[in-house]
Amino acid sequence: MQQRDAIKFCRECGHAVTYRVPDDGDTRERAVCPNCGTVHYVNPLNVVGTVPYFGDQVLLCKRAIAPREGFWTLPAGFMELGETLAEGARRETDEEAGAQLTLGPLFTVISVPQVGQVHSFFLAELTSLDFDPGAETVEARMFKLDDIPWDELAFLTVSRTLKLFIEERQRSQFGVHCFDIRFQPRKPA
Amino acid sequence: MQQRDAIKFCRECGHAVTYRVPDDGDTRERAVCPNCGTVHYVNPLNVVGTVPYFGDQVLLCKRAIAPREGFWTLPAGFMELGETLAEGARRETDEEAGAQLTLGPLFTVISVPQVGQVHSFFLAELTSLDFDPGAETVEARMFKLDDIPWDELAFLTVSRTLKLFIEERQRSQFGVHCFDIRFQPRKPA
Repeated sequence: MQQRDAIKFCRECGHAVTYRVPDDGDTRERAVCPNCGTVHYVNPLNVVGTVPYFGDQVLLCKRAIAPREGFWTLPAGFMELGETLAEGARRETDEEAGAQLTLGPLFTVISVPQVGQVHSFFLAELTSLDFDPGAETVEARMFKLDDIPWDELAFLTVSRTLKLFIEERQRSQFGVHCFDIRFQPRKPA
Repeated sequence: MQQRDAIKFCRECGHAVTYRVPDDGDTRERAVCPNCGTVHYVNPLNVVGTVPYFGDQVLLCKRAIAPREGFWTLPAGFMELGETLAEGARRETDEEAGAQLTLGPLFTVISVPQVGQVHSFFLAELTSLDFDPGAETVEARMFKLDDIPWDELAFLTVSRTLKLFIEERQRSQFGVHCFDIRFQPRKPA
């Protein structure tokens, strides 16, 4: 789980912060410590994942956790310090599905500015259809490309990536796709 | 300027944090607040920039600030919340060089795990050769591709991106290149 709540206290000295544009030529308001001067930056996060396929099927994971619990997703999660995009994509696929695969090229790079995220998906050919889902996954299973549960997908990043995968698989030629997603907020139930 | 120093105090309540693996199934050590339970995540940052070209020339900026003050770079900087990769690349090019351009496709996506960064460069065709460098830039000027000051470039991400640009420009076909850079630490002088 990742939190993007506003910073209230300085991480260097524990003093309450104030919000202002720093004096160093910056143009944005940041949490600045009036005691020790530390400026606290908050920046977009990288989400990394894979499109794990075998023949005309892809692996999807049913989410056991919020957000979008119970919906299907491609395996993906937050990139960690010390790893590359590809290493993060592989790790998340292992953690969420326990899947064995050969990692392929970068496939989609999707900015989601409303949530401050960039999602990067790599193609990945499965080398086994035995899975070992982790705690964040209720079920990991293969779906034929004709049987993708479009109405039960967790995220627009996932549905857009799967649509591109299906289109390009028909031509047997995969590109790298960089685009943005802006969404309408969901209405309260 | 961006800091990645260790977190010492909780941003929610100001209490001193401890470092441990959280109890929520996480596998990594995080700064956890023993008072309010907040877990503090630190993740890789996105650096976004452009390869601003016109004919057989590219725009480089001489850095006025650390790191690598006095060396030449492609315009690039940290992606901000609320923007897309492309918007960030355009903003940084404007801030560092004041350059007018038509933004093109994503060109390189480079993981630099030792510093916890992902660098994304977009191609960008200049629509004017008048520049207006910002405070982070001593000088912004065009270099012929035969005259790139290779020994005075600030970063490996910049030199690798420029080399790919020169190679692919000869074939007039540009791809998207995702790769990693791991470097030997510089020896102290």
